[in-house]
Amino acid sequence: MDRSAEFRKWKAQCLSKADLSRKGSVDEDVVELVQFLNMRDQFFTTSSCAGRILLLDRGINGFEVQKQNCCWLLVTHKLCVKDDVIVALKKANGDATLKFEPFVLHVQCRQLQDAQILHSMAIDSGFRNSGITVGKRGKTMLAVRSTHGLEVPLSHKGKLMVTEEYIDFLLNVANQKMEENKKRIERLQSIRMLILEDLSDGLEMGFYNCLQHALERETMTNLHPKIKEKNNSSYIHKKKRNPEKTRAQCITKESDEELENDDDDDLGINVTIFPEDY
Amino acid sequence: MDRSAEFRKWKAQCLSKADLSRKGSVDEDVVELVQFLNMRDQFFTTSSCAGRILLLDRGINGFEVQKQNCCWLLVTHKLCVKDDVIVALKKANGDATLKFEPFVLHVQCRQLQDAQILHSMAIDSGFRNSGITVGKRGKTMLAVRSTHGLEVPLSHKGKLMVTEEYIDFLLNVANQKMEENKKRIERLQSIRMLILEDLSDGLEMGFYNCLQHALERETMTNLHPKIKEKNNSSYIHKKKRNPEKTRAQCITKESDEELENDDDDDLGINVTIFPEDY
Repeated sequence: MDRSAEFRKWKAQCLSKADLSRKGSVDEDVVELVQFLNMRDQFFTTSSCAGRILLLDRGINGFEVQKQNCCWLLVTHKLCVKDDVIVALKKANGDATLKFEPFVLHVQCRQLQDAQILHSMAIDSGFRNSGITVGKRGKTMLAVRSTHGLEVPLSHKGKLMVTEEYIDFLLNVANQKMEENKKRIERLQSIRMLILEDLSDGLEMGFYNCLQHALERETMTNLHPKIKEKNNSSYIHKKKRNPEKTRAQCITKESDEELENDDDDDLGINVTIFPEDY
Repeated sequence: MDRSAEFRKWKAQCLSKADLSRKGSVDEDVVELVQFLNMRDQFFTTSSCAGRILLLDRGINGFEVQKQNCCWLLVTHKLCVKDDVIVALKKANGDATLKFEPFVLHVQCRQLQDAQILHSMAIDSGFRNSGITVGKRGKTMLAVRSTHGLEVPLSHKGKLMVTEEYIDFLLNVANQKMEENKKRIERLQSIRMLILEDLSDGLEMGFYNCLQHALERETMTNLHPKIKEKNNSSYIHKKKRNPEKTRAQCITKESDEELENDDDDDLGINVTIFPEDY
């Protein structure tokens, strides 16, 4: 079987099966994006989460935290209020931790080139920890990931270690991250919409050219000036950035203090390390 | 210029330049791994950090945290004690956050196949958020990343929001993560050592076969049974896992409650999503 036929077979198999996640359906905020990808021949999605705030309770087994001893006290894909967390914490008898987990999406791609273009979109939308996996037999997967996270231990052996005032403060921070996460998803969505517009113009372009065109148009028309400014979009930076700065970043070799682990507001590895003409 | 010659030129340029990071040198814990990669024709490293605990102080500008208003109050690549954090916190006048950032490494690779094999090593060592980036002109980069993190807001507008007891508890958690991070680096190192042994046997194998051989040997000889058990190494799981389970994971399509954002102890996307025969 050739590569394309094999890909179509995998896709049909995967999409025809039931959604076995606890929730059993795609999160509202990403359903359009997921549908858009699954409608295209080049892609299908294998898992997604729009972003969530969750409270976990974990038993401690020696020094190692064991997944199997982990209990979910609370999970929400919306903004979260203090009282919900306070109530949920009453059920904690191990080490409870509050986490914000940003949007994550896994997309199987027909070819490496398809993964590359989606990867560019993801990076341009602020999902800087995105990356491609290529299996031995060429199976190609893109994971869209953000650097945006929060992980805060709240209780130890059932004893609450922080004040209610702190939990209130913490949820403000978590909710802000949830809002920023949503903006990034919207940015991915807006790129998608531009592709659709181009397609409806009846242009005889491939998906790749189409997306390039859409990205260029977006840069020109300044659709989301605020988000773009904040994200330091690599696409925009490729046009603007200072060659001296590029060089300096490129040679920042080891123990780099500005690595991707840092805040999302600086340039990502995919942008800064490659010379202008790569 | 052909691809190999171009790669050699990039490598020579990159490695001949000064290390412009704040620290100005490779972190002790990863220096062997970095040297090993840089000695091979297939790779060169462009940045690395062995893992660190840091305390950041950030000014708040509306809802957005601005990188440029961020000040480093403390950074250490070793275990951290409460008093150091308490002293550093006295200098905070914005929103101070304690972070644990795990090992991160960026490696430019000559070909996609070279990146694939390093990627497998990284996943098998527990660095589940690793991924490949391929530039338009074929420039191929592997980012080795962990899911292991910690990000805890401690003060707001200069006011400390937690107790000293909490900081002590938090540093225990951070230090445990630092130790686990070190184990994973050691696992990457041990795979490297096995390759070296094979090379010194004078076997006429390519790097790829060599690594496969090393991985197989390691599985057989059970070099680090404890670490392997904890990591749920994908290599080991490929041999053992239950086909029914694989199928179930594959069809867990959307809103997956066991996504990679979760704890490191479960199987990663790269393992669970691909069918046995990919």
